[in-house]
Amino acid sequence: MSFIATPQSMHFDEPLPLQGGGSIADYDLAFETYGQLNADKSNAILVCHALNASHHVAGSYEGQPRSEGWWDNMIGPGKPVDTDQFFVIGINNLGSCFGSTGPMDTNPATGKPYGADFPVVTVEDWVDAQARLLDRLGIEQLAAVLGGSLGGMQALSWSLRHPDRMRHAVVVASAPNLNAENIAFNEVARRAIVTDPDFHGGHFYEHGVVPARGLRIARMIGHITYLSDGVMNEKFGRSLKTPTLPGARDSLPPDGADPARGGPAPDRRDYLYSTQEVEFQIESYLRYQGEKFSGYFDANTYLLITRALDYFDPARAHGGDLTQALAVSKAKYLLVSFSTDWRFAPARSREIVKSLLENQRDVSYAEIDAPHGHDAFLLDDPRYMNVMRSYFEGIAKKPNPANTAKEAA
Amino acid sequence: MSFIATPQSMHFDEPLPLQGGGSIADYDLAFETYGQLNADKSNAILVCHALNASHHVAGSYEGQPRSEGWWDNMIGPGKPVDTDQFFVIGINNLGSCFGSTGPMDTNPATGKPYGADFPVVTVEDWVDAQARLLDRLGIEQLAAVLGGSLGGMQALSWSLRHPDRMRHAVVVASAPNLNAENIAFNEVARRAIVTDPDFHGGHFYEHGVVPARGLRIARMIGHITYLSDGVMNEKFGRSLKTPTLPGARDSLPPDGADPARGGPAPDRRDYLYSTQEVEFQIESYLRYQGEKFSGYFDANTYLLITRALDYFDPARAHGGDLTQALAVSKAKYLLVSFSTDWRFAPARSREIVKSLLENQRDVSYAEIDAPHGHDAFLLDDPRYMNVMRSYFEGIAKKPNPANTAKEAA
Repeated sequence: MSFIATPQSMHFDEPLPLQGGGSIADYDLAFETYGQLNADKSNAILVCHALNASHHVAGSYEGQPRSEGWWDNMIGPGKPVDTDQFFVIGINNLGSCFGSTGPMDTNPATGKPYGADFPVVTVEDWVDAQARLLDRLGIEQLAAVLGGSLGGMQALSWSLRHPDRMRHAVVVASAPNLNAENIAFNEVARRAIVTDPDFHGGHFYEHGVVPARGLRIARMIGHITYLSDGVMNEKFGRSLKTPTLPGARDSLPPDGADPARGGPAPDRRDYLYSTQEVEFQIESYLRYQGEKFSGYFDANTYLLITRALDYFDPARAHGGDLTQALAVSKAKYLLVSFSTDWRFAPARSREIVKSLLENQRDVSYAEIDAPHGHDAFLLDDPRYMNVMRSYFEGIAKKPNPANTAKEAA
Repeated sequence: MSFIATPQSMHFDEPLPLQGGGSIADYDLAFETYGQLNADKSNAILVCHALNASHHVAGSYEGQPRSEGWWDNMIGPGKPVDTDQFFVIGINNLGSCFGSTGPMDTNPATGKPYGADFPVVTVEDWVDAQARLLDRLGIEQLAAVLGGSLGGMQALSWSLRHPDRMRHAVVVASAPNLNAENIAFNEVARRAIVTDPDFHGGHFYEHGVVPARGLRIARMIGHITYLSDGVMNEKFGRSLKTPTLPGARDSLPPDGADPARGGPAPDRRDYLYSTQEVEFQIESYLRYQGEKFSGYFDANTYLLITRALDYFDPARAHGGDLTQALAVSKAKYLLVSFSTDWRFAPARSREIVKSLLENQRDVSYAEIDAPHGHDAFLLDDPRYMNVMRSYFEGIAKKPNPANTAKEAA
């Protein structure tokens, strides 16, 4: 049982200029905080979320014991990011469907839900919106910005847009931009949503429907890319949905591990020989994940967030030169990648590390040999947890250099 | 300009028993042949096709100079599989939409198109149907069965179901079965098709529509898995669809190769900042491939063929023991895999090689270091072509052992 978390919300009247042009005014940002902000406001850590997450990073909601935040294993009292030491802020991004203003909310210009008219928001826009929230909280400089995957992109972007407002960037399972294959998967997911007849050009709310077919497909594709080939084989292999069926012929040997592949035990029933019924466990798993997701995630948010991923590319304004792009950074960095992550492979983290080193920045890098693919960044690998714990212990021990300077003066 | 190919068709009255139960009667098989069958009918090579292919393996149709067969670079006079030496048979599988009887054809039981009622056919069923066609052609023993991907599975299956009817199996870019990730991609594609409202439970023909949305998604997913990450980055990278747009701000440096990643030159326009418009070239490519495919491929055939892939697993009847499954084989084998093929990775070919060696079979294996992913099996890599050429030259030179035995007698 983790501690009690309480969601908060902050309203912003003043327009936020957006990278794509124009601006958004009258918006809310949902956030949560854990731990205590210290007297000189130097122990704050901002946690940025990835595609399917929110400001609810850690703890549980009152009376909802199974409502743990998405990074509850990482953040909390005595955890690697220790809320006895740090004031941790989880924030929900603009365009989300989990609390901050997004496509489901009313467009003040029309009085109807924004839908597809919600402006395209970028990683940089999110970072700027987060900075405004920190202004309101009176936090001038963060001890660290922390995120995994798309959250890691935000941490990286923070260190470029607001280099004086943070001391550490912790970038987990991330990349300096999406490659063609990443964009390709995002595009297939978007096409599945947009071509669903229930999408209605992004204004489905008015029709009382959701493009559930498209969302299911999008989520199924996502899940495949979150897992490694190896862990999928280990978890599901070629196992059938129902290992035995009434009346099935018993043509296979008794249960026992597959001798050839070390995978799950072979099944004791015949195939159904059907193109549409669920035959294999992996199918059942993906259908279930798709069904669940389509019940709570907003289709327009999915489009926005995948596009924010596609667009992120800090090197672009520097002719593709990442080293030049990172020259403005002042933070110290921890980068973490996972050996079997093929969505954001270790090589992509190494690109960032290389460019930071070329700028003579202080970088720690851990490449964790973990079997779980991209999902590993949310899991409890002890080596990963130890790397994170010791890095954050280091941050906690090191006095705020600004204060040290003040004391010396 | 390649030689002229002429499609043929053969009708079968007698019911073919199917692995999934029941049988199919009154069906046609489309095929083509190239080269001359020799006097003792010992120089025949059967070519099995993969998902999106047919009996039109090589040559072009009269008056259609751009209608080359799908393996025209491999098969023909003077080519690695030399039709001056061999009598090559291309055959279209049952359930296809390219000539052999399939879901678009009339179900004699109802007088309407089979649609989703077309029986589920397996690799083994295809192999048995192919064997009957050979009976009719009077070919007792094939010099070789050759196929790539799903075609390679058929070549492997041939060597298990009809070990006395072939001397060589050439299995390219294939696997002893699909792994969980392969099945997962197939399942997403199938769900996209089946949940398209225009699918009408597989009886869309009667409604005068096709589930084009689903087919597009299926094809886009397929294309991602056919290409390697590396070749996608090289071909498309993060290049924008239209490198410059009228009135675009020129915020980027002059053209030139991306210095950091060695990829395509950066683009000289701003992003469109749109979730639905085509922004990147990779999106344009995938949408084009999807659109093209949905215009000619049958949705029910797609379901059938992906299911045949899912179901293929010769080790299954042997408790998962591939070595035991391959014990009945008598052929000599050539296996070829490609280093960047992540759909049917080299490790999967090596499983077959290992099991064949454990059965003390004669196996050649080439792992080609090629950048193109699974698609490499259709491309002109010189090392690959040389391996194939020299293997088939070996087959051509070696006398039919049955004849040698006869001569000695």
